[in-house]
Amino acid sequence: MRLGAEDIATYARGCAILGTGGGGDVAGPALAAAIALERHGPVDVRSPDDLPDDALVLPVAGWGAPTVGIEKFESGEEGPALRDAAERRFGRHVDALMAGEIGGGNGVQPVAWAANMGLPLVDADSMGRAFPEGDMTSMHVHGVDPAPAFFADERGNVVTAMPTDAAWLERIARHLVVAFGGTVAGADHVMTAERARRVTVRGTVTLALAIGRALGDGVDGVLEVAGGRRLIGGTVVDVRRRTAGGFARGVVLVDGTGPDAGRSVAIDVQNENLRAREGDRTVAAVPDLIVVADEATGDAIATERIRYGQRVVVLGLPCDPVWRTPRGLAIAGPERFGYPGPYVPVEEGG
Amino acid sequence: MRLGAEDIATYARGCAILGTGGGGDVAGPALAAAIALERHGPVDVRSPDDLPDDALVLPVAGWGAPTVGIEKFESGEEGPALRDAAERRFGRHVDALMAGEIGGGNGVQPVAWAANMGLPLVDADSMGRAFPEGDMTSMHVHGVDPAPAFFADERGNVVTAMPTDAAWLERIARHLVVAFGGTVAGADHVMTAERARRVTVRGTVTLALAIGRALGDGVDGVLEVAGGRRLIGGTVVDVRRRTAGGFARGVVLVDGTGPDAGRSVAIDVQNENLRAREGDRTVAAVPDLIVVADEATGDAIATERIRYGQRVVVLGLPCDPVWRTPRGLAIAGPERFGYPGPYVPVEEGG
Repeated sequence: MRLGAEDIATYARGCAILGTGGGGDVAGPALAAAIALERHGPVDVRSPDDLPDDALVLPVAGWGAPTVGIEKFESGEEGPALRDAAERRFGRHVDALMAGEIGGGNGVQPVAWAANMGLPLVDADSMGRAFPEGDMTSMHVHGVDPAPAFFADERGNVVTAMPTDAAWLERIARHLVVAFGGTVAGADHVMTAERARRVTVRGTVTLALAIGRALGDGVDGVLEVAGGRRLIGGTVVDVRRRTAGGFARGVVLVDGTGPDAGRSVAIDVQNENLRAREGDRTVAAVPDLIVVADEATGDAIATERIRYGQRVVVLGLPCDPVWRTPRGLAIAGPERFGYPGPYVPVEEGG
Repeated sequence: MRLGAEDIATYARGCAILGTGGGGDVAGPALAAAIALERHGPVDVRSPDDLPDDALVLPVAGWGAPTVGIEKFESGEEGPALRDAAERRFGRHVDALMAGEIGGGNGVQPVAWAANMGLPLVDADSMGRAFPEGDMTSMHVHGVDPAPAFFADERGNVVTAMPTDAAWLERIARHLVVAFGGTVAGADHVMTAERARRVTVRGTVTLALAIGRALGDGVDGVLEVAGGRRLIGGTVVDVRRRTAGGFARGVVLVDGTGPDAGRSVAIDVQNENLRAREGDRTVAAVPDLIVVADEATGDAIATERIRYGQRVVVLGLPCDPVWRTPRGLAIAGPERFGYPGPYVPVEEGG
């Protein structure tokens, strides 16, 4: 598959849905990707099956609070800086980029970098969505060591970390986010294509594009592609938000209208929409995806863009099966975020 | 010159004086150094003149708040981890260690690492004292790029940073200090012996040892070796202290006794003693050294050890001439810390 300038708007809409409120705003990366694709032509999107066993795959993502990402732009040199640091460390060429996180701007930015660097993009990521913390990856579920990890800011600062484990990667990265003013570009879990076949969430570039296309039929088209169910349709009546410790946290309240009149759903946010509650009952929770979409356009609304009075549809989509394993739930299930368990799949009522 | 187990207590006392209240407590590093020297024999202390031009010198130091250093011990593996990271980066062997900061525990710890690694120690450092911020180095005064910088914690985490300048090194390091729980070992400004001859503060290992020996004659012996003058002798009547943002900050008040009765000196602290005031008048200020010593033993009291009721002598010692240049004062003079200038050398009344 090839991803061209004409696909980017559709693809970005799909990434925004998979962002489940986070992963960074898609508008800036979509613009950067459109320009890069116009200039360099389409990017090859390759299944890890179609790469040589020993091809070196560089998973890339932006770290930090998306509220900051809106105002703090990248220079465009972060991707090459990450590649150069990895090539120096490994003493060989990087053969392909991969989105560390398919959701939100983090799913779109790698397209721009891949076009600019003339590299293929792997049809996979490490989440199948967006998650707020960097140790919430399928590689971590599979026990893959994250080191070395690379970081690059828009001023030319580059950091290489050798964390002892995924928890230390998260801790080091979160402090670098603060050092660099709220966001930093990163690459970690560098791996061969052979490994990528086994430890990534596969087909997610294709999925994002399919979701984007399904939005042409309105927001319910997403459910046909991704599964899941509609949680509520209504109006945003309250937004409580703060940016602290490198995260955007808050609660969004949606009061139902039309067929949902009289109902009310509260959504807990930490960069992403993590849990939807109706009264005392959890109706959807991590690792499943909770999408707040504009009622009129079907576009996902990033957590930092939600505001009072918006008319929205809230969807619950099933996560990749890797997250429903015991280790997947230990890493990214409700209890990990301090919510009561046990986790119930969204198809079964959350 | 060789530094053996029998010299360490004396040397550590001298480093504590040059620590001007900071640089970390000397007791732990002195114990580590004594054990290492007993096990491996004396360490060669070499003038940079006595090393080949292209010998690779690794300046090492602990970053962080000394209040934390008292309770958070190192593993002993930080030195080898820093050396390994540097050797990997430069593709060659490290030939000698240098104390990044001669003052306090940071002057003593490299002796332990040098003994354990079988490396000589360069008779120099980058401050001639201790300073609270990592960009306050003679290398920075001379315009030397700090990158790459290496960091290692006691759990095995290793970070390599390529900061764009000394200010970014300081900022990145300060956030890593917080990430790693208050302290982290670091190495930066890796250089050849040829460069070390030009951009370091030379002879400071020898100086620390000479000061330690002079303390045998009481605290005033320090003035004969290091110059400077006695600022006040008296009692600590107030200590205000807090640890914030990776620094230990505070104010210490000393009321004069004996010949100084009726006088009172306030000392402003940020890890190190930065300024001594008598009423509205500054009597000594950075970059000169302000030493608070125990009246009975002559031992310097680290800022984190100062307490109400201690009987002390406060000395003002002249800094290395590099700090009295315009660029030296811009980097580590009173105004850099928000104190009013202009700087007046302590020999001329502060």
